[in-house]
Amino acid sequence: MPIYNAPLADMRFILNDVFQAEQFWQANENLAHVDAATAEAILEEMAKFAQNVTLPLNRSGDEEGAHFENGKVTTPAGFKEAFHQYAQGGWIGLAADEEWGGQGMPKMLTVLADEMLFATNPSFMLYPLLSVGAGMALSSYASQEQKETYLPKIYSGEWSGTMCLTEPHAGTDLGIIKTKAEPNSDGSYQITGTKIFITGGDHDLAENIIHLVLAKTPDAPAGSRGISLFIVPKFMVNADGSLGERNAVGAGSIEHKMGIKASATCVMNFDGATGYLVGKENQGLAAMFVMMNYERLSMGIQGLGASEFAYQNAAQYATDRLQGRSSIGAKSPEKPADSILVHGDVRRMLLNARANNEASRAFAVYVGQQLDITKFSTDPEAVAKANNRVALLTPIAKAFLTDTAFQATLDAQMCFGGHGFIREWGMEQCVRDLRIAQIYEGTNGVQAQDLIGRKTIKCDGEFIAEYIAEIRDFANELDTDLNFIKDATLDVATEIEMVTQRIIERAAENPDFSNAAAIDYLHAVGLLSFTYMFARIANAAYGKQGEFYTNKLSLTHYFIQRVLPDLNSRILKIKAGCEVIMGFSEDYFTSQS
Amino acid sequence: MPIYNAPLADMRFILNDVFQAEQFWQANENLAHVDAATAEAILEEMAKFAQNVTLPLNRSGDEEGAHFENGKVTTPAGFKEAFHQYAQGGWIGLAADEEWGGQGMPKMLTVLADEMLFATNPSFMLYPLLSVGAGMALSSYASQEQKETYLPKIYSGEWSGTMCLTEPHAGTDLGIIKTKAEPNSDGSYQITGTKIFITGGDHDLAENIIHLVLAKTPDAPAGSRGISLFIVPKFMVNADGSLGERNAVGAGSIEHKMGIKASATCVMNFDGATGYLVGKENQGLAAMFVMMNYERLSMGIQGLGASEFAYQNAAQYATDRLQGRSSIGAKSPEKPADSILVHGDVRRMLLNARANNEASRAFAVYVGQQLDITKFSTDPEAVAKANNRVALLTPIAKAFLTDTAFQATLDAQMCFGGHGFIREWGMEQCVRDLRIAQIYEGTNGVQAQDLIGRKTIKCDGEFIAEYIAEIRDFANELDTDLNFIKDATLDVATEIEMVTQRIIERAAENPDFSNAAAIDYLHAVGLLSFTYMFARIANAAYGKQGEFYTNKLSLTHYFIQRVLPDLNSRILKIKAGCEVIMGFSEDYFTSQS
Repeated sequence: MPIYNAPLADMRFILNDVFQAEQFWQANENLAHVDAATAEAILEEMAKFAQNVTLPLNRSGDEEGAHFENGKVTTPAGFKEAFHQYAQGGWIGLAADEEWGGQGMPKMLTVLADEMLFATNPSFMLYPLLSVGAGMALSSYASQEQKETYLPKIYSGEWSGTMCLTEPHAGTDLGIIKTKAEPNSDGSYQITGTKIFITGGDHDLAENIIHLVLAKTPDAPAGSRGISLFIVPKFMVNADGSLGERNAVGAGSIEHKMGIKASATCVMNFDGATGYLVGKENQGLAAMFVMMNYERLSMGIQGLGASEFAYQNAAQYATDRLQGRSSIGAKSPEKPADSILVHGDVRRMLLNARANNEASRAFAVYVGQQLDITKFSTDPEAVAKANNRVALLTPIAKAFLTDTAFQATLDAQMCFGGHGFIREWGMEQCVRDLRIAQIYEGTNGVQAQDLIGRKTIKCDGEFIAEYIAEIRDFANELDTDLNFIKDATLDVATEIEMVTQRIIERAAENPDFSNAAAIDYLHAVGLLSFTYMFARIANAAYGKQGEFYTNKLSLTHYFIQRVLPDLNSRILKIKAGCEVIMGFSEDYFTSQS
Repeated sequence: MPIYNAPLADMRFILNDVFQAEQFWQANENLAHVDAATAEAILEEMAKFAQNVTLPLNRSGDEEGAHFENGKVTTPAGFKEAFHQYAQGGWIGLAADEEWGGQGMPKMLTVLADEMLFATNPSFMLYPLLSVGAGMALSSYASQEQKETYLPKIYSGEWSGTMCLTEPHAGTDLGIIKTKAEPNSDGSYQITGTKIFITGGDHDLAENIIHLVLAKTPDAPAGSRGISLFIVPKFMVNADGSLGERNAVGAGSIEHKMGIKASATCVMNFDGATGYLVGKENQGLAAMFVMMNYERLSMGIQGLGASEFAYQNAAQYATDRLQGRSSIGAKSPEKPADSILVHGDVRRMLLNARANNEASRAFAVYVGQQLDITKFSTDPEAVAKANNRVALLTPIAKAFLTDTAFQATLDAQMCFGGHGFIREWGMEQCVRDLRIAQIYEGTNGVQAQDLIGRKTIKCDGEFIAEYIAEIRDFANELDTDLNFIKDATLDVATEIEMVTQRIIERAAENPDFSNAAAIDYLHAVGLLSFTYMFARIANAAYGKQGEFYTNKLSLTHYFIQRVLPDLNSRILKIKAGCEVIMGFSEDYFTSQS
């Protein structure tokens, strides 16, 4: 049975030592209700929930999967009780406004709570996650009446939420969706169409499901500027908040997937279902994008959670597994063989994962802090700056964190040898469950295109320049004892600055340049971000006594020596340009000549 | 339903144009029975078998899986008939000696036949593959009587074979196995112990199963020098070749795995089973290693097959999927959106896979040719040289080809977006099925250690120096029009030469250096090998008319610009040394501080 011990020590270190969270919270009147003790208590409670409730349901949920019968989805054994307990604990509304029954906690704290749930049971986590996403879109765009009707029930877990975007022919390109919304005389709409890949589209966890649906009204302009957002409840809601009759929406089937099998991924059929417009007509995509920055960070957290889970299990297995001998003489001559930890290559795999976890965790908290500034700060200049930072870093949080985490879970699986391939040890499930995080909420390739296009070329590099300025300021303040990380940070910053300039110039000559360079640029900026996080980690650990802190410095060395070199190949690939790539005819790909 | 069109055009090009196979065969008296027409006929027949017989069983085999009931394994529907047809076609003995009913075909041809089977049904392929492996060990080490008893039946498919090495506590480190072989008075042995991860340990495809089992005799020396090899048939074989009573060996269970679910991976219990010594006592490991070079190349072919299958399906999907618009203006304005092939990032993923396939295929044929020289050449000097080359390149063939292929299948899966994660399109199965190839037959980390240790440091770099000399000779002869690949090849050769020298020096000072650098060195030598293959491909295509050939040159450019840059980061990581990696205490890995 796989293990999981919530990494509370590192979480504490990152919140308190690296980011001085309490100071930040207390300095903001809208966050003054949060202090270090509250944060600590929340993390400890979530650790218990993750270790005792969701972890034991992870493998059984995978084995059993979600069921679909007679148009109804039922979740695997134990999920209903766990969801009820989760809702009772107030976890769904942890970050939601107190006005609607939430706890008003900052994102820089909730990312850490989310990590534990993603680590122990990603399939389970997706159910409340979609509720939170729906709640967030409603908070920003819905009418007061709609908020009053839906938000308290969603945050209490009585009802849940979905996001209905994708259609069979339209995923990334939502401009070509076909779902129709025809106005009724009473101001509501008739929604007709088919949506696919709808997480939690049906289930037995809550009394009602509130679908947020993108659709086109009859005279909507073509493309993405003609999309509206609608509320479509599974059961109609009476004026007193009680449930009425069943709406004309239902699951047609569920997908059979590589992983997250306990999460019901539904085909949803809308057969003239009653829907209610959220916000204004044709502005639905903007409403969906409100929650995107939050959701996309969540996918990065899914990666982090999986990578931490995988690391802990692989480290334990490697410690226990006796095989071969150290090349510098037996370490445990009294045993038939040494632990495989004597092999540098096994350590390399574990350290890759651990360096990824610690940098990712710091980065998630950092992006969470930026989101908190956008939401809670009263200083318009700070908000504007944080908005730019969030815009820049969201694709990194989603795509870089899931790419590196996936590699980390593969490394961890490899530490098990053949045992990593069989179900018993949980590693193969971890890999299967995580793979989707690179794909959904916009594939990582789409994230990379967002970063290099809208977030960099379009603003002429302003966002990245601001980020680099902050990083330089920080690095320049580091103690001379930390020159190894200071120099690396400044070097990387300059490399990114130069390559960004080159990208902006080359893309102006040939727009195809940017898409061909996108994924390498995303990884390059991701490596800059991890370097910055290690600079902050090293700075926080420097001068403190104890192995905990000296190990942070050693891990920083490891990152610089063994992970950061990937930057070189990324930059060479960016510079290679797009001529060869775009030079092949379309026919080439499917022909053998 | 996934597609597969055997890449016969590229196979022909590699055999005929790149390696002038017929000339090579005809120049060797032991291979003079093979000509281009025979090779062509064999590849065409195998293409039909793969497309019509094994491909349609691939998904159903995964869904149904192998069954275990009452100690017996049954294979999924259709496997028995397909195996019978495969055996009838003479495919099991394709590369086996004619003396034992084989067809005596060279490895440089059979790797291509194997690729098609691995592409369309890796689970199926493993059953005959293990028979061939067992046959090979017996051919080299068994007595004449044993050969006569077992080989014809194995190659006809009436019986099958296994390799029983791994035990619950002993995988990579076979020196600590516990299975016992106690001599009986009649010269046979009583075999007692438990073996795990035994591919095809039981099944319903053949009448009898011939287990090749590693075990220790009572007075065997400790460690790997005290291991003997035994034949343990499932059913005893009477003097006339008919089957006698059941031997005391049987499957205790089968594993539930991430992939290759139609391949039965068994726990095998030997309860005083009757066994017959193969070769001499305590020399069992050497006998096992005879087949290792062949088997490990096969794992590389598994990677190539999967990568080709994934590429073909992804290229077709990308061509058909309309989503978004080209950044330089709509390519198909008459359609609602352009094909996703307009996006450089999608092309990048496809070209990564295609470059991998063409280089891997050439490399597999090249290593096959070296194996053929060791087996068929009458020139002792050529044999000695080829033996060194095979020793050097086997870990590359196994580990580099599976690492790059796994990345290619991930890239192909990503081209499908969410559709890549669901069963219907076959991509997620392809990824799950291939993952094991990086793990079994010695993990890729173990391969890397073999390359850097026994194959490089131990011979003071002699094998790699010989290889580099050949590569330089070839590059220096290239036409000046091919300077782009000539220069790249010579540069890479020099880089590898220098880093090899450094490794040898550093490992002499600190033996831990080599293991910590192993995987990066393996990838560096792998990149050298692919560069060499592209030099040969470019040379063969150069000056010939037609898109087929110009595309080969374009793909060579792609490789140099977009794949080869990984070499830089590999070399930086090697140079980083092992001090930081080995500096962490063993406790660090399982503690949070």
